[in-house]
Amino acid sequence: MNGADRLCDTLLGNGIDVCFANPGTSEMHFVAALDRRPQMRCVLGLFEGVVTAAADGYARMADRPAATLLHTGPGLANGLANLHNARRARTPMVNVVGDHAAYHLAYDAPLTSDIDSLARPMSHWLRRCTGPDDVGPAAEAAIVAARTHPGIATLILPADSAWGEVAAADIAPVAVPAPRPVPDARIAAAAEAIRRAGPRAGLLLGNMALRAGALETAGRIAAATGAKLFSPVQISRLEAGRGRVPVTKIPYAIDLALKCLAEVDVLVLVGAPEPVAFFAYPGKPSRLLPDGAPALPMAEPGDALGDALAALADRLGARTPLQVPTPAPLEGVPEGDLTDAALSHSIAMLLPERAVVVDEGLTTARSVFELFKRAPPHDYLMLTGGAIGMGPGAAAGAALASPGRKVVALQADGSGMYTLQGLWTQAREKLDVVTIIFSNRSYAILQREMRNVGVNQFGENARRMMQLDDPALDWVALANGMGVEGAAVETAEGFHAVLDYALGREGPFLIEAVMA
Amino acid sequence: MNGADRLCDTLLGNGIDVCFANPGTSEMHFVAALDRRPQMRCVLGLFEGVVTAAADGYARMADRPAATLLHTGPGLANGLANLHNARRARTPMVNVVGDHAAYHLAYDAPLTSDIDSLARPMSHWLRRCTGPDDVGPAAEAAIVAARTHPGIATLILPADSAWGEVAAADIAPVAVPAPRPVPDARIAAAAEAIRRAGPRAGLLLGNMALRAGALETAGRIAAATGAKLFSPVQISRLEAGRGRVPVTKIPYAIDLALKCLAEVDVLVLVGAPEPVAFFAYPGKPSRLLPDGAPALPMAEPGDALGDALAALADRLGARTPLQVPTPAPLEGVPEGDLTDAALSHSIAMLLPERAVVVDEGLTTARSVFELFKRAPPHDYLMLTGGAIGMGPGAAAGAALASPGRKVVALQADGSGMYTLQGLWTQAREKLDVVTIIFSNRSYAILQREMRNVGVNQFGENARRMMQLDDPALDWVALANGMGVEGAAVETAEGFHAVLDYALGREGPFLIEAVMA
Repeated sequence: MNGADRLCDTLLGNGIDVCFANPGTSEMHFVAALDRRPQMRCVLGLFEGVVTAAADGYARMADRPAATLLHTGPGLANGLANLHNARRARTPMVNVVGDHAAYHLAYDAPLTSDIDSLARPMSHWLRRCTGPDDVGPAAEAAIVAARTHPGIATLILPADSAWGEVAAADIAPVAVPAPRPVPDARIAAAAEAIRRAGPRAGLLLGNMALRAGALETAGRIAAATGAKLFSPVQISRLEAGRGRVPVTKIPYAIDLALKCLAEVDVLVLVGAPEPVAFFAYPGKPSRLLPDGAPALPMAEPGDALGDALAALADRLGARTPLQVPTPAPLEGVPEGDLTDAALSHSIAMLLPERAVVVDEGLTTARSVFELFKRAPPHDYLMLTGGAIGMGPGAAAGAALASPGRKVVALQADGSGMYTLQGLWTQAREKLDVVTIIFSNRSYAILQREMRNVGVNQFGENARRMMQLDDPALDWVALANGMGVEGAAVETAEGFHAVLDYALGREGPFLIEAVMA
Repeated sequence: MNGADRLCDTLLGNGIDVCFANPGTSEMHFVAALDRRPQMRCVLGLFEGVVTAAADGYARMADRPAATLLHTGPGLANGLANLHNARRARTPMVNVVGDHAAYHLAYDAPLTSDIDSLARPMSHWLRRCTGPDDVGPAAEAAIVAARTHPGIATLILPADSAWGEVAAADIAPVAVPAPRPVPDARIAAAAEAIRRAGPRAGLLLGNMALRAGALETAGRIAAATGAKLFSPVQISRLEAGRGRVPVTKIPYAIDLALKCLAEVDVLVLVGAPEPVAFFAYPGKPSRLLPDGAPALPMAEPGDALGDALAALADRLGARTPLQVPTPAPLEGVPEGDLTDAALSHSIAMLLPERAVVVDEGLTTARSVFELFKRAPPHDYLMLTGGAIGMGPGAAAGAALASPGRKVVALQADGSGMYTLQGLWTQAREKLDVVTIIFSNRSYAILQREMRNVGVNQFGENARRMMQLDDPALDWVALANGMGVEGAAVETAEGFHAVLDYALGREGPFLIEAVMA
């Protein structure tokens, strides 16, 4: 067997049995090794941004890493934006990046580049195999790193490490350390701060603290102390919907974010970093908490967040569940123009039980997040690093990890164009994804930001950099071109009817919601 | 005025009046400054890979740099693969990459990343503005670097450098040094080597040595000495066609490349690096020249290549032009299956006078390069770094730089899917591009490479990573979805007729050639 065989066996022996891939010549031995192992599910993306987004969506739902297969520096580069998002989500992932044979690098062949320099910014862990015998140990270390941290492990696989012979060996699963327990002193400090601030305390919940069980615990703390529960502006995965403890999502817009946190005297961080302004603006602060209000780090993303919250609740004597309001389900069919409100209403009203929402809706249907509290229990996944173009791939990956569940992808049009190739993967894998394109035919978020810098009258250059009309995109044609059925709608009642139809059928479907 | 205004004025004052852009929030002040200067032509790409490819195609034809506008680390990352190609082509380019305000970086906001680490591998020159007053000098240095080297200059523009006030100032164009003269000793050494080796000498011509004038000079050397004229496997820009001195392109496939150079005793390098194997293969060499046959560097890409060739010709007493064969123009309409040969014949036969060919055809229609010697004079641009996905954007950029000339884009289907968004830019800018999609519905190049590593029977995993069928892409629908008209053809005569039609009309058009 060769190094590539060893790599495959190490992945499979550790429960990594999905590989999102876009291979090239330097990975042919790895492809041949994968081909000898039909138990590995290989999923092709027609662009690497789809590959890495899919691995992100997959691991968020499966709670274990997928592998990716990327081709040299440029192939990795194409996947970096969505690795950036996955890094911010602390998604476990094992990237295999093929490179030239080590001895060939000195010749600076056309595809040679400094892969290490490219990979480092978007990787929590990085290693280059030094030879065939290093592949096994390096792969094991990558898996441990991806699962422990958790985060992005990138393994560079030179072609001669892949093709070189290695001795056959049994693969024993690596020991992955359990999530780190949070020291008592940190729990005590958080408890003391919450006790002192009472309703002016906040808990910022990230990562595994946004699952239903941890939220229930956090809800008890809120009930006992009046502390407010927040989530970051961008959410890796939230178990939400009727009956689940709700959180307040910190808004993206700086003024709203400042207002949201204005009454907070101390913010306890549970698996999330201190919230900061998404961008800097002249004369506005970078920190979002009021002056003098500290952020108190209690636990990191790799810590045992559920246990830490339970310990915190115990220390606060918080035994009574939060009374979660159970508003009536949404009713009625919106009519007329296809507004944010109409879209949000229909989406939240029709959302199926146990749906997986992938939200890259950006400026459109922001109110849907609030309305989802009235929808059946579901999972909510969001763009996490601000690098647009996560949606179509992440939806594919999430669907692959969630058989029997419907994936609803809320997709801004400008962002969707970044990685529209993901629709093809949805079609090929026959994934149960309903994509809703919010077709406002603009980079609406930028138009708002231009107004934030004081420009209200757009000239030709600004207009041409922010409008996606002239020509308008025909998303149904684009979807059809990749084997995905679709329909375009221009009224609220039309949208409602088509969404209802799409959710009732199987396989990928795209709705272009042409906004008023 | 602010730093962004100064940047725009510096670009415009140095003849950079096209900016390929995909902006984000951190670039809003730059966008506002561009908006105040309608003399800057801003061209939106719906993905950064389109933006950088367009800047590459533009500069190859305009012989001067365009600017690009990219949004933070992920936006740059999306453009890196085509920066890699441009770097290999030694294309002059000034990239402006927006970043957070300097003081905001410490807060590690969601979009923060190590832009310097990402940019360095694909940039010949890199600098981060240290404040508003640094923007002018940094921009001038970037322009000098892009034009002198020539190559990729990347300027990181923090938002507070863009929005901070600067004093108004007149912009004087920077002094760009003339191409470096090649020392006499190098000319003499090359002349001596050619004299000694005679017909077993080769000249490898790159960069500006592939323009018609330089080729004419090289042709005189060939005529006088019997030396062979070669081009690299990937060509930045070649002036080719009837009456022009032809070159032998070194093949991509390792065995063919070795055979091509087997009779060469010495290879004189004129603006190109020594040719090496595109990839490493077990048991095959990295060098392509025969053992003991040296490569003799005479001139670098930034040198005065035409002058150097003229001096070399003088020293060799080479005054007589090469007798360039003038074969009859191609004739006749191919019939039947849509084979490589049929496609090549029709394309070369119908190629308009002064056309610009952008070739990312990869495995299909390789014979067209030979047949182009019988086509009217034209420019030939090729994928230069092996990072697929250059075509649609590069064709747009080349068209923008070449008004009144027809651009013919030869596009493999797998590669085309990487950056299909470039079709939208072609539609918006009403560019005169005819795209021919070679629809073989596979990564055919990888299927060949798998056979090279000894795998002839593909299992399910290999098949699913290399076949693009199931579902088949409908390229006409994809083009229509982005506002580009198109037609699909399945016969040689059908292709010939549609190509003839497409070349006779104005504006972008796409032909899906469904291969036999």
